[in-house]
Amino acid sequence: MRRAIELAARGLGSTSPNPVVGCVVLDAAGRTVGEGWHQRAGGPHAEVHALRAAGESARGGTALVTLEPCNHTGRTGPCSQALIEAGIARVVYAVADPNPDATGGAATLRAAGIDVEGGLLAAEAARGNEVWLTTLARRRPFVVWKYASTLDGRIAAADGTSRWITSAESRADVHRLRAEADAVVAGSGTLRADDPHLAVRGLDGVTQPLRVVVDTAATVKPGARVLDDAAPTLIAVAQDIGTAHLDGLAETLRLPRAAAGPGLDIPALLTALYERGVRSVLLEGGPTLAGAFVAAGAVDKAVGYLAPVLLGAGPAALADAGITTITQALRLDVTETVRIGPDLRITAYPHAEEN
Amino acid sequence: MRRAIELAARGLGSTSPNPVVGCVVLDAAGRTVGEGWHQRAGGPHAEVHALRAAGESARGGTALVTLEPCNHTGRTGPCSQALIEAGIARVVYAVADPNPDATGGAATLRAAGIDVEGGLLAAEAARGNEVWLTTLARRRPFVVWKYASTLDGRIAAADGTSRWITSAESRADVHRLRAEADAVVAGSGTLRADDPHLAVRGLDGVTQPLRVVVDTAATVKPGARVLDDAAPTLIAVAQDIGTAHLDGLAETLRLPRAAAGPGLDIPALLTALYERGVRSVLLEGGPTLAGAFVAAGAVDKAVGYLAPVLLGAGPAALADAGITTITQALRLDVTETVRIGPDLRITAYPHAEEN
Repeated sequence: MRRAIELAARGLGSTSPNPVVGCVVLDAAGRTVGEGWHQRAGGPHAEVHALRAAGESARGGTALVTLEPCNHTGRTGPCSQALIEAGIARVVYAVADPNPDATGGAATLRAAGIDVEGGLLAAEAARGNEVWLTTLARRRPFVVWKYASTLDGRIAAADGTSRWITSAESRADVHRLRAEADAVVAGSGTLRADDPHLAVRGLDGVTQPLRVVVDTAATVKPGARVLDDAAPTLIAVAQDIGTAHLDGLAETLRLPRAAAGPGLDIPALLTALYERGVRSVLLEGGPTLAGAFVAAGAVDKAVGYLAPVLLGAGPAALADAGITTITQALRLDVTETVRIGPDLRITAYPHAEEN
Repeated sequence: MRRAIELAARGLGSTSPNPVVGCVVLDAAGRTVGEGWHQRAGGPHAEVHALRAAGESARGGTALVTLEPCNHTGRTGPCSQALIEAGIARVVYAVADPNPDATGGAATLRAAGIDVEGGLLAAEAARGNEVWLTTLARRRPFVVWKYASTLDGRIAAADGTSRWITSAESRADVHRLRAEADAVVAGSGTLRADDPHLAVRGLDGVTQPLRVVVDTAATVKPGARVLDDAAPTLIAVAQDIGTAHLDGLAETLRLPRAAAGPGLDIPALLTALYERGVRSVLLEGGPTLAGAFVAAGAVDKAVGYLAPVLLGAGPAALADAGITTITQALRLDVTETVRIGPDLRITAYPHAEEN
């Protein structure tokens, strides 16, 4: 199953709005005879890939799948049927399918006389499918907040200079995060400070994410790098702001202003993105926009790149999130700390009870 | 030698102003027959402990020592002589002794016909003796800056509340750091905010560090916890501030004001502490004092406790250090990252060329 989870992860960034799924088929003697993963929405499911690779060897064998095999006919046929037809004797899956349209696969398999077991490495597999599972439960995209700061929490020096706080290795790693996301979101402050490009560079064969700028102050001007043709771009603006200057340059999205605070309505933004099919968002800052997302309870995961640098002055990674006293603090659990070149990458999730 | 380095570390906090030293004695057949470490200043050196444990088995054997055996007669006899008398055939040491009063041990041993080799695991052993080696080179105490912050670099919420950002495990770990230091230094801002105690609690048999308050504004008042009898206390005040209110409560030290910035002259403070025999300082903040130390180039090591918490507002761990643009940033190397309960402890050293 661990291998199946690894295979599933290969689909990150290209299966949206579908889950990532991995499958390993063993023959009757327990030897691996087929591997597969769901590669892209509309393409064959993981089980189909693995069964094809296994061929006749699947007969009497076992299928290990990260997600309960589907029971519905979407753009492809139901996987439960494919497993039955291939003569699989036993199916072990990690996570039950919570999707009301697709669930019931386990029951179908059992009715066909197949030995079915669920829950193996379920927590690990669920983390691998966090985007899809969160999206399904909340009806909004899964939001990863990425930040890069010094050890003392600064994202730039007092004079605004910030090239380069983190290393080339960390910056390359951010492109991997972008490639896994359906959309990359930045605010007008970041646009003004950095004129960022927000597209994926240095990685082959990736689907470019939608670039989204939350532009509260008509900051995006013709010539901004985010308007080039490397990836599609959406400029979210307040309902009371004119957008004639963007005609022909980018798609615009009109949003209400936030009920509190200076920006736009974050839940409305996420709903609009969800309705466009966006299932995962990489929030790339800056501090004001990140504060608005935290205040809206809309950060599902934080990935911080910490550079071993001290500044003693300059803007912080996170600005006003409506937290004024320590008992209101957003508490997280660190799940991973790794060295990326000279930097540390810290991955953390808000405590479950605070979601 | 790795074992000898481990033994040496047991002396941390009690050998000042001496180095920590560990020694393993092997018999002629290569079996470990004696171990020792320098336990306290004035007590026997590591070699003497290990030779005593080995007894006659040392004859024809090998001594592995983390520091070149000393050649001088201080409060104890020279170790080179003890090794010769015990009939040791071979001495392997890690770090050469840079102390002009004690050096020459290797030459003495060689003159007595002993096979001598230096440099084994030298970098590792030097790190274990960083306090002593730095102090010897700079004629001021070795300074460890300890801070505790949220992931977004805050040491307290907007309203000043900070209990508890880091975990009980991290706070216990800080007591271990205090126990290893000769002096613990805090500023008047921290005194006002937290009324800290600054002594070691929860550890048996430790030498309490000297508690030092850098009190620029006559903040320390009778009744402050730092004035209790748990450990000695020194209040450093500006030369122009009256200290009658501290008579009989704590020793005072008069310092010039800093040439730039709001505080006292940090190099003068360190020189005064050095002259009192302080060889290692744990700087416990807050941000203003830490900024003054960084600006003075007087942070030799940083130990940060990072709590998986987000605040979005509140004071930063490090305030003005005279750094205004990114090229002036203090760059460090992270040498260790460990989980301490839910928190991360990050250990880092300023780049060698910036010292």
